[in-house]
Amino acid sequence: MSNFVKIMEVGPRDGLQNEKSFVPTEHKIAFIEGLVQAGMKRIECTAFVSKRWIPPLADHAELAAALPRHKGVSYAALVPNLQGYEQAKKYNFNEVSLILAATQSHNQKNLNASTEEAFERYKLVIAQAKQDKMPFRAYISCAFGCPYEGKTPVSEVLKWSRAFYDLGAYELSISDTIGVGNPKQTHELVKLLLKEFSVDRVALHLHDTHSMALANIYAALELGIRSFDSSAGGIGGCPYAPGAAGNVETESLVYMLHSMGFKTGVDLEALRKTSQRLQEYLQTQGSPTITGHASRSVLR
Amino acid sequence: MSNFVKIMEVGPRDGLQNEKSFVPTEHKIAFIEGLVQAGMKRIECTAFVSKRWIPPLADHAELAAALPRHKGVSYAALVPNLQGYEQAKKYNFNEVSLILAATQSHNQKNLNASTEEAFERYKLVIAQAKQDKMPFRAYISCAFGCPYEGKTPVSEVLKWSRAFYDLGAYELSISDTIGVGNPKQTHELVKLLLKEFSVDRVALHLHDTHSMALANIYAALELGIRSFDSSAGGIGGCPYAPGAAGNVETESLVYMLHSMGFKTGVDLEALRKTSQRLQEYLQTQGSPTITGHASRSVLR
Repeated sequence: MSNFVKIMEVGPRDGLQNEKSFVPTEHKIAFIEGLVQAGMKRIECTAFVSKRWIPPLADHAELAAALPRHKGVSYAALVPNLQGYEQAKKYNFNEVSLILAATQSHNQKNLNASTEEAFERYKLVIAQAKQDKMPFRAYISCAFGCPYEGKTPVSEVLKWSRAFYDLGAYELSISDTIGVGNPKQTHELVKLLLKEFSVDRVALHLHDTHSMALANIYAALELGIRSFDSSAGGIGGCPYAPGAAGNVETESLVYMLHSMGFKTGVDLEALRKTSQRLQEYLQTQGSPTITGHASRSVLR
Repeated sequence: MSNFVKIMEVGPRDGLQNEKSFVPTEHKIAFIEGLVQAGMKRIECTAFVSKRWIPPLADHAELAAALPRHKGVSYAALVPNLQGYEQAKKYNFNEVSLILAATQSHNQKNLNASTEEAFERYKLVIAQAKQDKMPFRAYISCAFGCPYEGKTPVSEVLKWSRAFYDLGAYELSISDTIGVGNPKQTHELVKLLLKEFSVDRVALHLHDTHSMALANIYAALELGIRSFDSSAGGIGGCPYAPGAAGNVETESLVYMLHSMGFKTGVDLEALRKTSQRLQEYLQTQGSPTITGHASRSVLR
């Protein structure tokens, strides 16, 4: 098994979209630049969704236009439909992320569509992406539990994973959107996923609501998973929305991985400095979220 | 393997001893009473150490005298020497805790003695405890790493574990005092411990400095360990003293265990209310530590 663990840094998108205050574009750019300097090779920078839906990411176009590019660094944008995809392409993103919940209720709330309808939309995106040779990645969200439906049936996770996998998603990001998965559940789910899918095309995207993300990551590492999503500074926890707790913190993830002997290519000290600068800015804005960890304890 | 996990609640001792502000005795008693109501069966309530050394626990005698007792609940007191032991006995504690670091430097700083000298003192305590039929438990602290010596040699952990085990410690509490252990290291250490000692006499006591405590606990659960120490509300993290980060939070531990199908006998909601009351009090005192998690992010 490989000694190298890939990270998808999702702080600028999944983190900031859950912040109460709008972070000005220049701060976002400084944050992303800092992440690149710290050695991050994949960064999800924004989402091309309606400004009304996600006001914190309303500057997606300005951000994309102003963002310096770096050789060997892949910038991802989340796109909910073909229109969003065309924007991501126009602004030269290196890859796109698609998101589909494994539960009907969450897709209805999040995408305003049934799971099947949402997937039909994604088929159009994927057809175009293939034509453009644009790599795409699929989040299977609410894969552990759903705020509306409770524990998610594994069969649904496998079914929608299969659908994106067969259409060519370079990676499935199996997501614990509300952070309720435990290591036993992670072990069981990953085991089933690896029966069906190549280990180098499966990642985990864990929120740390109940502090179990690193335990779950350890359970997945034991089974050979070598790709995880995380958010620098653990930003994105919203103490007032139990469904939107922060992603696992990149610093904690990297610390654990390095101490276990894995390589990540990330300079932990540089990463901490970058996170700290953003956190200091968020604090001046009265953000209730200093970090994911800080918020987590309020959440419960 | 058993489905029941035992918890030693150490918040009133290990948690509060690291708080900057002195918590008045009546608040401590309310805290401990709340823990009992939440189903906690073992609680380390205080330490009979010099008031000069640990001012937050200077009221050990007053606390002990006023503390209501409950059938089936074991109150523990930490004792560093025979004098402390006699106090614990006088105040009718149900068990005592002894603490010895696996590294010389830490014993010198913490106990003002070499490891061998400290152990000689404990032999006197143990001889008396046996005569009194007082159960005793041994912390092997700095078992993963030491703030002065770096990574702790496993041979030292095994050696001092063996010494207390053979003298009749009912449980060894293998302690990651500074929270640097990772799950791989935990797996390896626990495996070696279980080659030598009965699984029902080994516990882990983990601080959560780098958010790895639950991952380490999962690694230990996999190997059959069913006893852990934790601190309600994760209290005790001190953002200004990297060596004194909070214990793993009891709420997170219980949440994970229950979600994995383990039983603990703890009522999580009642526990949360108790922790919250104490945290609210600590906040009114301007404690920088709202919870272990909150402090942790400042710490790094």
